[in-house]
Amino acid sequence: MSEPTLFHLEDGYQAWLGYRQIAPGERYDQYAFYTQITVTEQDGIMGTAVTELAQGIACMLGRQPEISEHSEGVPCITIGTFGNNPMVDQAFGMDIRAAIGHEGYGLKTDQENGCIAIGATSAVGILYGVFHLLRLFSTGSPVDRLDVVENPVNQLRMINQWDNIDGSVERGYAGKSIFYADNRITTNLPRIQDYARLLASSGINAIAINNVNVHQFETKLITGEYLPDVVKLADIFRAYGIKLFLSVNYASPLEIGELSTADPLDPAVRAWWCGKAAEIYAAIPDFGGFLVKADSENRPGPFTYDRDHADGANMLAEALKPYGGIVIWRCFVYNCKQDWRDRTTDRARAAYDHFEPLDGRFMDNVILQIKNGPIDFQVREPVSPLIGAMEQTNQMIEFQITQEYTGQQRHLCYLVPQWKEALNFETYNKGVGSSIKRIVDGSLHGNPYSGFAAVSNIGNDANWTGHLLAQANLYGYGRLAWNPELTSEAIAEEWIRMTFGENQQLVKVIRGMLMDSLGIYESYTAPLGVGFMVNPDHHYGPNVDGYEYSKWGTYHFADCHGIGVDRTKASGTGYTGQYKGDNFARYESLDSCPDDLLLFFHHVSYTHVLHSGKTVIQHIYDSHFAGVEQAAQLQAAWSSLEGSIDSHLYEQVANRLTEQAEHAEEWRDRVNTYFYRKSGIADQQGRRIY
Amino acid sequence: MSEPTLFHLEDGYQAWLGYRQIAPGERYDQYAFYTQITVTEQDGIMGTAVTELAQGIACMLGRQPEISEHSEGVPCITIGTFGNNPMVDQAFGMDIRAAIGHEGYGLKTDQENGCIAIGATSAVGILYGVFHLLRLFSTGSPVDRLDVVENPVNQLRMINQWDNIDGSVERGYAGKSIFYADNRITTNLPRIQDYARLLASSGINAIAINNVNVHQFETKLITGEYLPDVVKLADIFRAYGIKLFLSVNYASPLEIGELSTADPLDPAVRAWWCGKAAEIYAAIPDFGGFLVKADSENRPGPFTYDRDHADGANMLAEALKPYGGIVIWRCFVYNCKQDWRDRTTDRARAAYDHFEPLDGRFMDNVILQIKNGPIDFQVREPVSPLIGAMEQTNQMIEFQITQEYTGQQRHLCYLVPQWKEALNFETYNKGVGSSIKRIVDGSLHGNPYSGFAAVSNIGNDANWTGHLLAQANLYGYGRLAWNPELTSEAIAEEWIRMTFGENQQLVKVIRGMLMDSLGIYESYTAPLGVGFMVNPDHHYGPNVDGYEYSKWGTYHFADCHGIGVDRTKASGTGYTGQYKGDNFARYESLDSCPDDLLLFFHHVSYTHVLHSGKTVIQHIYDSHFAGVEQAAQLQAAWSSLEGSIDSHLYEQVANRLTEQAEHAEEWRDRVNTYFYRKSGIADQQGRRIY
Repeated sequence: MSEPTLFHLEDGYQAWLGYRQIAPGERYDQYAFYTQITVTEQDGIMGTAVTELAQGIACMLGRQPEISEHSEGVPCITIGTFGNNPMVDQAFGMDIRAAIGHEGYGLKTDQENGCIAIGATSAVGILYGVFHLLRLFSTGSPVDRLDVVENPVNQLRMINQWDNIDGSVERGYAGKSIFYADNRITTNLPRIQDYARLLASSGINAIAINNVNVHQFETKLITGEYLPDVVKLADIFRAYGIKLFLSVNYASPLEIGELSTADPLDPAVRAWWCGKAAEIYAAIPDFGGFLVKADSENRPGPFTYDRDHADGANMLAEALKPYGGIVIWRCFVYNCKQDWRDRTTDRARAAYDHFEPLDGRFMDNVILQIKNGPIDFQVREPVSPLIGAMEQTNQMIEFQITQEYTGQQRHLCYLVPQWKEALNFETYNKGVGSSIKRIVDGSLHGNPYSGFAAVSNIGNDANWTGHLLAQANLYGYGRLAWNPELTSEAIAEEWIRMTFGENQQLVKVIRGMLMDSLGIYESYTAPLGVGFMVNPDHHYGPNVDGYEYSKWGTYHFADCHGIGVDRTKASGTGYTGQYKGDNFARYESLDSCPDDLLLFFHHVSYTHVLHSGKTVIQHIYDSHFAGVEQAAQLQAAWSSLEGSIDSHLYEQVANRLTEQAEHAEEWRDRVNTYFYRKSGIADQQGRRIY
Repeated sequence: MSEPTLFHLEDGYQAWLGYRQIAPGERYDQYAFYTQITVTEQDGIMGTAVTELAQGIACMLGRQPEISEHSEGVPCITIGTFGNNPMVDQAFGMDIRAAIGHEGYGLKTDQENGCIAIGATSAVGILYGVFHLLRLFSTGSPVDRLDVVENPVNQLRMINQWDNIDGSVERGYAGKSIFYADNRITTNLPRIQDYARLLASSGINAIAINNVNVHQFETKLITGEYLPDVVKLADIFRAYGIKLFLSVNYASPLEIGELSTADPLDPAVRAWWCGKAAEIYAAIPDFGGFLVKADSENRPGPFTYDRDHADGANMLAEALKPYGGIVIWRCFVYNCKQDWRDRTTDRARAAYDHFEPLDGRFMDNVILQIKNGPIDFQVREPVSPLIGAMEQTNQMIEFQITQEYTGQQRHLCYLVPQWKEALNFETYNKGVGSSIKRIVDGSLHGNPYSGFAAVSNIGNDANWTGHLLAQANLYGYGRLAWNPELTSEAIAEEWIRMTFGENQQLVKVIRGMLMDSLGIYESYTAPLGVGFMVNPDHHYGPNVDGYEYSKWGTYHFADCHGIGVDRTKASGTGYTGQYKGDNFARYESLDSCPDDLLLFFHHVSYTHVLHSGKTVIQHIYDSHFAGVEQAAQLQAAWSSLEGSIDSHLYEQVANRLTEQAEHAEEWRDRVNTYFYRKSGIADQQGRRIY
């Protein structure tokens, strides 16, 4: 294991792990008290934990701490798994130790000698505890009375890389892949390790390292041609407590095997996958499992053989089961060759219609991975009604950190509030108290597996995420997956302090920018939940009719009278009927449907009056004018920080915000003009529309 | 010079030069009379002429004619330039010889011995005469009383290849380039020769062999790296009387020279081009000259140096002048970064506004090449008012044979009627009698150079043009350039007879299909001259708002009330003011503006009543419904020929017509739905709109 690469701070490479040196003063003195680390374990993840702790402290205090097996009588930080370090055992009573799960940890300051103990049942718990303590140091928090027990709320906290082996990243906006180039796995392993550090420090414990769209060369990742290199990546992630998964091609038995079918009920196919699993686990004993996009957007799947998703997933699950591996089966299944003239087919219905009837049919090591909304990561969608609807089926939620539809890291859009809104959504699947977060943390249905997945936003740009402030989304995702009760503001503040330091004004300004950003972006893009008013293919920029006559099932049906999709049971596609309890009635009725989802559920006239008191058309105009003003305010806010931030970092963000402000104007004008021309209704305030 | 490659007839490769064998009978006997060719000249183009004649006759009659220097007393075809063949000299009196220009020829049947003489002042005239005679044979025309004198009406009859050296063809719909692959010039010279035959047989005498968008590698065509291979191509075309031109990169002195500027007034730049011309002419003494797209769609040009187009063109002209070379300077110059919000800028005005003020400034070996319409090869545009507006400037018209906006060779669209309409357009530049054809044939202004250019529609598909029937456009272009008085029907009929043979019913059906096709295509695409309602970039398929919010200057301004571009002087962009005489008033007034150009010149309400008596909106609906029915009729018409045509050729066309009929339905529905949703006005006939 090489030392983590230490790039210079100015390019954003170190992200929230920059551990800037603390200036002399009260805060410095508090931390400088600790000159020693005591630890009795050094293997594997424990080695990582010690290295991270020592290095973090060295950076912040400007000198290396001693590392020893026993306390030398000086104030120390002692770390260890229970039963292996007497100081740790002494610090935590049995009741506390019992409360600490496999990935949990305790942090405790000894009130007599001031020593801090980090205890856990496993090395990975220690690593998380170390990152916790470093976070306290780097955010200037007190450590003199620590008495913390932390367990992750969610079991799987996963990242999906949509990286292709040719080096491209599907929906990537931060350069090329750090994993691949020219159809080979990278040899730049230090960068992979640095990514593992970032992920582990935010709480991530699983990663699928290739795109769910598995093309020709990626299909071979599970063959001897690539597997030795995959092993190297697995080794790196393992040292940070992160399990490695691979996206697989459902048609592998045909494409890389010698079989003439991929029928999941064919014994030869089943045997082929069993053999393949054995081969993979021989190389990577703790391999996580397979991520599968099947029968979706032209990818192969069990439908080819008149089998269903349960047949397909169970075949793979059977092969992985002996090794403790799991199958993560994506539910992003819909008709992507729809006729735009057909108003009865509703893409929003598709995932539920496909999967809900299969409840109970999936093996217990299959997890369904369900996008947060029923369409596709729009800035505003209702929560997918499939999440929680299958009581006997493992489920996890899928978010998109990469900003495909939310500004592509050219616009600022802090997504944690969006994710929290989904997590807090009440599904009524088991009556009141059935929020999404209780489904994905496993507590509602009590199934063996559950958790979070999200599509990464990183690439080989020096600052990882293109837009420096988009690092907050990567960090925030991990933190939220660890504990969905954290507030968006608190996560933002942690990230800002770790990234930029302690300046109170700076923290306040950036936190305000992050918190406002989602609403701003939403306001100058698609209004009232209508979604998908984007340019085809690349999905950047407004194009109101961009998908209106396409095969993708994403229509808004705007005409000269009104706009929106009637998804009611009464008169529309019946999608509202997929919601339980009060949700159905709330969405079904025009009176109770929330404004921000109105056009998702109802087709209304432009003169329909919203709960806000505005008409639909006036809301469109107002929100687009306001969004542009607010985008300009983001620029102004950032400008106020010039001088408080390293100039390279300052310029990076200033340039993006300038582009955002310019593009917001263009988007405002295009959207407003489209609706003005279509409706013929003038802006009440007489502002310029073309 | 290799023998022309003879592919089998069934794939369409031989196009109109298939020379199918004539069945025994009266017609056979008429031609079989001629068993001998007498010729005293055999070099260069004369060799080509003899080979073509002998081969054509051999194919049609099934036996080789004798070739000798003197008549052996048997009925012969004698060919020769005046003063070199006594039989020829005897056949043509001095008055006729005086009437035959450089590329002209005479054809005469001797009423005593039945011999046919082809006489000309030059070898290329003989070649054209030979193709004329072969055309008579292959269309079953009588040859017993020939008394023909033909001269081409237009001086330059040019083809522009938009072929890139990587093998792609910009706006090509018939496979890859036959000229290039993998950044090298092809070694498949027989195919180039076959192309030269096709061109020469239709009357073409010039070709620019590379795309007007000259990219990195193409820039080097004028360097030692590529020039030896260009010489080989020039040799092939020369043998068919075709001069070779190259498109050049205006920034060449920077990109392949050592200069730091391409300023046309810089002496070093001028010297560089003079040296370059010397180098090219040393290799190709009859090199035609340069074709230049400058300051257009992001191509470099004199504007960079605050120079104008005359400065830029004259610099190149000066370099070519000593060798008789010419500069063909394209007038497709407009602001391609327009703000869609700006309604005062009008792309239609651009060519005239840029060039007309420069009249008199261009050297006499500069020709301005002007697209037929002011926008870009739409199915319906007015004629460019620049053509003929510059009395002291050489001008040529540019057509597009490749069907960029007219169905991309997936739809049948015989373009000769469109071109004839443009050619017959009365410009009033010198009062009545100033038709476009009199400008491009040079007779109106009497400038030294003029003619036709057109973008080729061929690629390496076996049948050259993708859609077999699109061969008629290539053939028709050449014939029209030779003689604009030929009717569309006559050209179609020649081509059909040469390609498919003599079956009367077949000729009638295909001629009908060709003649109807342009109107059909127009009817289910953009209505009433509005244009550019296409998908961005690739330009296939309808997208009413596809360019509405773009930077390309191609807008229709449709809103819920109406549509169209006000280009009047009274209230619009003033574009109508570029027209002379009655044209101005005709276009300026809503009362007199022709229906088919109404939306090009005026913004009107959907309920505006056309001269046809229909409202605009009803016209849109009716024409789109009718176009689909007519597209289906094309299919039916072709089906009636099954069995009369080789089955491979039959299937080729049947498949294209099926696709056309399907796509026409889709286009109808998209366009009608767009306007129904926008206008809210129902179809009077209550047909299905979505």
